Amino acid sequence: MEAARCVTFGQYLRPHFYLLLLIFLRNGPHTVEGVWPLPQTFTSSIERSPLSPEAFYFEYGSQSAAQQGCSVLDAAFTRYFPLIFPDYTGNGVLRFYADKPFRLVITVDRDDCESYPNEDSSERYNLSVSARQASLNAETVWGALRGLETFSQLVYQDDFGSYFVNKTEIVDFPRFQFRGILLDTSRHYLPVKTILQTLDAMAYSKFNVFHWHIVDDPSFPYQSRTYPDLSSKGAFHPMTHIYTQSDVRRVISHARLWGIRVLPEFDSPGHTASWGKGQSDLLTPCYRGSSLSGTFGPVNPVLPSTYQFMARLFKEVSSVFPDSHIHLGGDEVNFSCWSSNPDIRAFMKKMGFGVDFTKIEAFYMENIVNITSALNKTAIVWQDVFDYHELRSSLSVVEVWKGGCYLCEVRRVAKAGLRVILASPWYLDQPGPTHNWARFYTVWPLAFKGTEEQKKLVIGGEVCMWGEYVDATNLTPRLWPRASAAAERLWSDEKQTSSADKAFPRFQDLRCKLVRRGIRAEPLYVGHCKHEYQGV
Amino acid sequence: MEAARCVTFGQYLRPHFYLLLLIFLRNGPHTVEGVWPLPQTFTSSIERSPLSPEAFYFEYGSQSAAQQGCSVLDAAFTRYFPLIFPDYTGNGVLRFYADKPFRLVITVDRDDCESYPNEDSSERYNLSVSARQASLNAETVWGALRGLETFSQLVYQDDFGSYFVNKTEIVDFPRFQFRGILLDTSRHYLPVKTILQTLDAMAYSKFNVFHWHIVDDPSFPYQSRTYPDLSSKGAFHPMTHIYTQSDVRRVISHARLWGIRVLPEFDSPGHTASWGKGQSDLLTPCYRGSSLSGTFGPVNPVLPSTYQFMARLFKEVSSVFPDSHIHLGGDEVNFSCWSSNPDIRAFMKKMGFGVDFTKIEAFYMENIVNITSALNKTAIVWQDVFDYHELRSSLSVVEVWKGGCYLCEVRRVAKAGLRVILASPWYLDQPGPTHNWARFYTVWPLAFKGTEEQKKLVIGGEVCMWGEYVDATNLTPRLWPRASAAAERLWSDEKQTSSADKAFPRFQDLRCKLVRRGIRAEPLYVGHCKHEYQGV
Repeated sequence: MEAARCVTFGQYLRPHFYLLLLIFLRNGPHTVEGVWPLPQTFTSSIERSPLSPEAFYFEYGSQSAAQQGCSVLDAAFTRYFPLIFPDYTGNGVLRFYADKPFRLVITVDRDDCESYPNEDSSERYNLSVSARQASLNAETVWGALRGLETFSQLVYQDDFGSYFVNKTEIVDFPRFQFRGILLDTSRHYLPVKTILQTLDAMAYSKFNVFHWHIVDDPSFPYQSRTYPDLSSKGAFHPMTHIYTQSDVRRVISHARLWGIRVLPEFDSPGHTASWGKGQSDLLTPCYRGSSLSGTFGPVNPVLPSTYQFMARLFKEVSSVFPDSHIHLGGDEVNFSCWSSNPDIRAFMKKMGFGVDFTKIEAFYMENIVNITSALNKTAIVWQDVFDYHELRSSLSVVEVWKGGCYLCEVRRVAKAGLRVILASPWYLDQPGPTHNWARFYTVWPLAFKGTEEQKKLVIGGEVCMWGEYVDATNLTPRLWPRASAAAERLWSDEKQTSSADKAFPRFQDLRCKLVRRGIRAEPLYVGHCKHEYQGV
Repeated sequence: MEAARCVTFGQYLRPHFYLLLLIFLRNGPHTVEGVWPLPQTFTSSIERSPLSPEAFYFEYGSQSAAQQGCSVLDAAFTRYFPLIFPDYTGNGVLRFYADKPFRLVITVDRDDCESYPNEDSSERYNLSVSARQASLNAETVWGALRGLETFSQLVYQDDFGSYFVNKTEIVDFPRFQFRGILLDTSRHYLPVKTILQTLDAMAYSKFNVFHWHIVDDPSFPYQSRTYPDLSSKGAFHPMTHIYTQSDVRRVISHARLWGIRVLPEFDSPGHTASWGKGQSDLLTPCYRGSSLSGTFGPVNPVLPSTYQFMARLFKEVSSVFPDSHIHLGGDEVNFSCWSSNPDIRAFMKKMGFGVDFTKIEAFYMENIVNITSALNKTAIVWQDVFDYHELRSSLSVVEVWKGGCYLCEVRRVAKAGLRVILASPWYLDQPGPTHNWARFYTVWPLAFKGTEEQKKLVIGGEVCMWGEYVDATNLTPRLWPRASAAAERLWSDEKQTSSADKAFPRFQDLRCKLVRRGIRAEPLYVGHCKHEYQGV
C-alpha cells in the first residue's frame, strides 16, 4: 500500500503540481478530482478499497432521523446502485474479491423525507470514505442526495472492471442556493420523458431548480383544470402536445426525488399569444387607426376580468406546484398594441400614467404579484419588471437575463435590496462557437462593487435553454455537458475553479460519465470515452 | 372529386401562385411538393387514391430485367413498406377502406441487382401514380431506389390515419452525379450502427456517396488484415474502437442496398500521426538542430519502404472497398518536420527540388496515385494537391474544400480539365448560427465563368462532417436536416430550388418526415411535428 497523497484545494497550489495532477488524471481520474462540481474541501488518498456490487450496502445510521421507509433516500439507493456499479448485471459472475462488505452509512439530522426541497434547504454534507465503510452525514435528505452523487462519482473501475473507491474526506456545500436550468416547452413541446431525463442529468451536476417555462406565445401545453380551453385551443395539439395534471405531478415527483425544485413560469403580460386562443377578452385587441385590426397584443391590463382570470389560474397553479416561488415573467412587452387601443389610452389617462406605458405594465405586474403573494408564493420576475418598476420594494427576486453589462444590472438589483438570479451569461440555447463552455465556465457572478450584504442577495444563477431551435431531438447534446460548466461555477469555490484549462480534463471525465449514464452529452474535443454512446 | 390541379415546375410561376402553394402546404403538404429533393419535372393532381397497407403490393413489371430474387429491390420493398405505412402494426385492425389492391409496379431495364452503384450509374426514374396502380420505371435498380423514396414521400395520412397518394407523374434524375457526405471516424469513433443510420438518412435525401474519412491523426480505427498493428496500436482502443473487416463489409453492404457508394479515404502524407504508432519508420523523424527531437511529422517520402508499405496497404484497401474511386487526401501537409530532417533535405537536393517542399509533396502524391492507378482505382485528392502539383494531368478528381473564393478554385480545376467535387460551402461540422441551412441551400456550384464542357467537369458536391466536436451523441441533429439542404441543391433543378424562403415549409415537412422515421433531425424553428421524436 502506497503512502497517502493528500490534496487540499483550499491552499495555494504551484503550477507544476497541476501538471502532476493532469498526468495523474490522464492515467485515470480515480480520485476526488473526478467529482464535478468540485467539492468545497476534501482530502484524498491513493489508498483504495475494492467494492463488490454483491457486498455493498446502503444503511441508515443508527442516529439518523430518517430510517428505512424514507421515500427520498430509499428511492435514491435504488437509483444510485446501478450508477455506482454500471456494469453489474446481477448474475453473480463478477466476484473478483472475497466480497468483504462495504457499507455506505447515511445519517441525516432531519426527517424531511416526505417534504419538498425549498429555497432554504441545506444541501451540505460530509462524506468520509475509509477501508470498508463510508459515512455520509447531512442535515437534510437533500444534502444526503448531493453526497450520494459525490460518492457515485468517486467509484471507478480498473481495466478489468473491478470497482474501487479511494480513502477520501469531503466537506461540501453549495456556493449558491439557486442553481437552475430553464426549459422552454412552448416553442417546442418536450415529451415528459425528455424532461425526466433532463432532471436526472441535472442531479448529476447538482442543479437544484427546474425552471419550467411552460407556456409562451407559440403554445400553451399546460392542461388547466380551471381553464381547459387554454390547452385544448392553445397547445400545438390538444391531445398529444400537452402536459396533463398527471404529467405535471410526475415531473414534480421525479424532481423531488432528486432534490430538485420545480419553479413554474407563467409569463405575462407579453408572450401570451397562445393564451388568447382559449380565453377570449384576455388579450388586448389592437387597432389600426380607429378600427380593430384583428390582431391581439399583450394581456389586457385594464379589464377587471383579466385579474379575475389570473387569480383563478394562479390559484390552481399555486396548488399544483408546491414550490414557495413562482416565476411571473414580465419580459419583453411590446407597447405598440396597447398604445393603439383607445380603452387602454383612456385608462392610462384616468390613472395619470400619461403616455408612459411602463407605468401600466408596472400596474399590471403589481396586481399579479399581489395575487400570487396572497397565495403565499414569492414572485420571481425578469429584469424588465425591475427596470421599469417604481414600487421596487414590492418585488422580491429579479432574474437578470439581458446581455451587455449584466453585472451592472446585478449590482443595481442588489443595491435595491432585492435578491438576484443571474442568467445572462448562461444562455445555452444557441449552439454558438465551439469551446464556448470555457466562456460559460469563467463567469464571476459577484465581481461587482457592492457590500457583503449586497453580494449575499445574489442567490444563484440559471442556464436558459430557450426552445426556438431546440426540441427532444437536440436538447441533450446542446445542454450537456455545457450546463455542467455553469453548475460548477454555482456550486464550487470560485477560487478553486477559475481556470478552464485546469478544468478541461475533469470536464472531459465528467462528459464520459454522463455518456456512460446514457446522457447524450456532446464531446468537448477530439478523443474518446471508454464507453461510447450506444444509442443512435 | 375535385378538378385536377396541375403543376409543372418547369414553367414560370407567378408570385401569388407561390402564396397559394404555401397555403396549400400549410394545410397539409400532401402533394408532390412534399418530396425532397424536388423532382425535376412533375404533374400532380388533388385526385387521390386511398392506400391500405393490407392491400398494397410491390410487383416486378413483366418487362422488368430484374425479377423476384433481386437483392437490392427485394430488400428495398421490405424497408419501404414500413416507411410508407409508418403506423401499420400488422394486426389487421386498420381496415378503413374496402381494400381494393394498390400495386406499385417496378420495371428496370438492367438486371444490375448484384452489382455496386458506381460513378456512371443512372439514377433516373419515371413514376406514374394513378387510381389503383403506380408504375415506376428506371434504367437501373439504383434509379428504382430513388423512385421508391419519392413514392414513400408522396404517401400521406389524413387526421384519421388513413393513407392516401395523389395522382402524380414524375420524371426525375439528379443534376449532379456525385452527392456525398463525409463522416470522420478518426477524431471520434462512430459506432457502426451510427454509420448505418446515417446511410438510411442519406437515402431519404437521395445522397449517393458515403465518403468515409476513416483514419487521421488522432486514431486509426480501420483493422487492416495486412497491418493489424495499425489499429491495435493506432486506434483509440484496439478492441472497442475499431472497424473490423466484418464491420466494413456490413457498412458497404448496407450502403449498396440503398444505392450508396462507399468512398474510403486514407489521407496521407499529412494527417497520419496515428499510422506511426503501428508502423515504425513510416513517419518522418523530426529534428531539433542536429539531433532527433523525438517527434514525427508526415509520412517519410524518401524511403522505398514507405512505398512498399503503401502499395500493400492500398492493395488491401482496394480489394476491401469495391468502389472504382479512392480518396487519397493530400491536404494540409506541414513542411516544418520535413525541412528539419537532413535525409529529406539531401533527397530534395539530389532530385533537384531545391527547398521547394511542394515538389517533394507532389513527388509523394504522384507515387501514391500511381500505386492506386495500378490497382484500377481513380484517385480523388483534396485541392491542396492540385494547387502545388505540376503534373496536373496525372490527377483525375479534385475536391475543393477551402473557403474564400471557392468558385475561383472550381474554375481553375475545371479549366485544367479535371473533375471537381465541391465541399467548401457545406462544412456542417461546426454548429454555426441558426438558420444557416439557408446559406447551405443557396449555393451555386456552376456560377463561374467557364465553358459548358468545363461545367460538366463539376461532378457534384459533398457535405463534410468533421469529427473534432462530433460523435454519436450529436452527429444526427447536427447533420440533419441541414445536409438535406445541400442534397436538394445537388439533385434538383437549380432554378426551381433557389429560394430558401420558398423551400422553408417543404423543408419543415421533410424534417418531420425524418423525425417520423426515427432520425433525430433538429428543428428549424418554433413549431411542432405531428409525431415528435420519441427517444430520449
